[in-house]
Amino acid sequence: MMGVIMSDFEELLHTKVNECEDIIIGFLPEETGYQSKVIEAMNYSVKVGGKRLRPMLMREFYRLLGGDNDQLIAPFMAAMEMIHTYSLVHDDLPAMDNDEYRRGKKTTHVVYGPGMATLAGDGLLNYAFETALKAYPYAKNLEKVGGEIEDRFIYALNILATKAGIYGMVGGQCADIEGEGKQTLTEDEILFIHENKTAALIESSMMIGAVLAGADQKAIESIKKIGSNVGIAFQIQDDILDVVGDQAVIGKPVGSDEKNEKVTYVTLHGLDNSRKEVERRSNEAVELVKSLGEDNEFLVELIEYLISRNK
Amino acid sequence: MMGVIMSDFEELLHTKVNECEDIIIGFLPEETGYQSKVIEAMNYSVKVGGKRLRPMLMREFYRLLGGDNDQLIAPFMAAMEMIHTYSLVHDDLPAMDNDEYRRGKKTTHVVYGPGMATLAGDGLLNYAFETALKAYPYAKNLEKVGGEIEDRFIYALNILATKAGIYGMVGGQCADIEGEGKQTLTEDEILFIHENKTAALIESSMMIGAVLAGADQKAIESIKKIGSNVGIAFQIQDDILDVVGDQAVIGKPVGSDEKNEKVTYVTLHGLDNSRKEVERRSNEAVELVKSLGEDNEFLVELIEYLISRNK
Repeated sequence: MMGVIMSDFEELLHTKVNECEDIIIGFLPEETGYQSKVIEAMNYSVKVGGKRLRPMLMREFYRLLGGDNDQLIAPFMAAMEMIHTYSLVHDDLPAMDNDEYRRGKKTTHVVYGPGMATLAGDGLLNYAFETALKAYPYAKNLEKVGGEIEDRFIYALNILATKAGIYGMVGGQCADIEGEGKQTLTEDEILFIHENKTAALIESSMMIGAVLAGADQKAIESIKKIGSNVGIAFQIQDDILDVVGDQAVIGKPVGSDEKNEKVTYVTLHGLDNSRKEVERRSNEAVELVKSLGEDNEFLVELIEYLISRNK
Repeated sequence: MMGVIMSDFEELLHTKVNECEDIIIGFLPEETGYQSKVIEAMNYSVKVGGKRLRPMLMREFYRLLGGDNDQLIAPFMAAMEMIHTYSLVHDDLPAMDNDEYRRGKKTTHVVYGPGMATLAGDGLLNYAFETALKAYPYAKNLEKVGGEIEDRFIYALNILATKAGIYGMVGGQCADIEGEGKQTLTEDEILFIHENKTAALIESSMMIGAVLAGADQKAIESIKKIGSNVGIAFQIQDDILDVVGDQAVIGKPVGSDEKNEKVTYVTLHGLDNSRKEVERRSNEAVELVKSLGEDNEFLVELIEYLISRNK
């Protein structure tokens, strides 16, 4: 960031990215033993980086709802980033998107081979659950929540697992792959893909933060809606940028959806309506955040930054 | 099995395989929604079959140690088989062993393509944790266990996760892949691979059964040793059969280790010593089982059947 003048928000964001990064790296396994290669590949994949958005959102909602035990939330933050990372590692495989670079660095299968990269993804997904379970000693005194799942720790594990699987991210990836082979998609299908492929982990990050902070069911439902709006708006904005964005700013080729004849929200509804939809969802998310707690300034800016980004 | 005369043990085994099969299938997700394809691929992989050995061992140890709540143990049985199955789906991928058939049926990637098979494996691993969490409502009144992890349900989840990951099965798979590129392996490396690639899920199946039945730490440690002995003996027996077995009986080519110049326990120690080691481990496992509970007849026969099989 040297030589770049940052706004107060950007400086704070930068600090928080680094904090989340340190937490995540603190939970990575040691590269020893006869299995050191797969651990090396796992750690390489996580360290390649990114904005650590999901763990950050998890911690921000945890704090907004009154959570103050870093030892309780940290394992879930790391677990979430491991799940996000494994999905990228497997997505990049030759059997999937066959991408050689991500964030300017060689993808895991290019460095370690597709077999070891498959195993590294499996290792990360599995280690995510091992890591989340490390929060247990700090979760013993949490107030109970109502309903069938009364234990907040179990509730958080359930959200983590469900939103990552076939009723969340994996489900969205499946629908996305299936959609690529189709001539047309309905709005319902497109929203399903956005909701699950993109929004599910954002939603679950926010929800886990709230559940572990002791939020009531009404607040948790609001937060689910915030996550869904942010995730879907983020994805529609992505499709808008693919049409009108500046390749030099975005850092990836624009016009790829048109080239691939991909049906998107924008091809279905046009640019104007898509922009309005992004704005509507963004506003709804921000209003809901403001209704949840006083100390919401950074979170509101973060959501606006994520959605209305030009890259 | 028509026309084959079965012993009492084989008949009982046959019944129990079917019981476990029914339980596992009862937990498979419904093939609906925009994500139905990945669910179909997951269910196909599980239904291809097998002896359901791990869930069966889990239930047998649960019962041996006094467990009597089928609703508590069933989700863990299904979860274990999902983990075992995902590992086979990913192992069979072109990026790994590139196998086209398993148990006489086409492998998942041959039917659904390698991308969808990768996703199906991910979906299964993830769904295993979703499924195990379904045992929670039946786990609330379990007696506490000592130590840092005092909750038996959390303890069982921990065993499930740890033994499947880099400190278990995934770790063993990594060492196995790494070993294939080496001219020689030490006994220590071979035992690490057997212990983790093969024994880990057998061990954890038995241990979870015991933990949920309310076993004390001493019994759990004995059971860990039983699982380790059974898993390693099973694998050495596999290597012995690769040298002396009858292809027609085993149903797969023999002599493949020699052809692939694979270093095994048998190439290191010779046939006689390997047979002795199988017997030693088998005896130790059986003695330990007998020390755990009275009603051990089927379990003892099962262990002997597994280890001294000729196929």
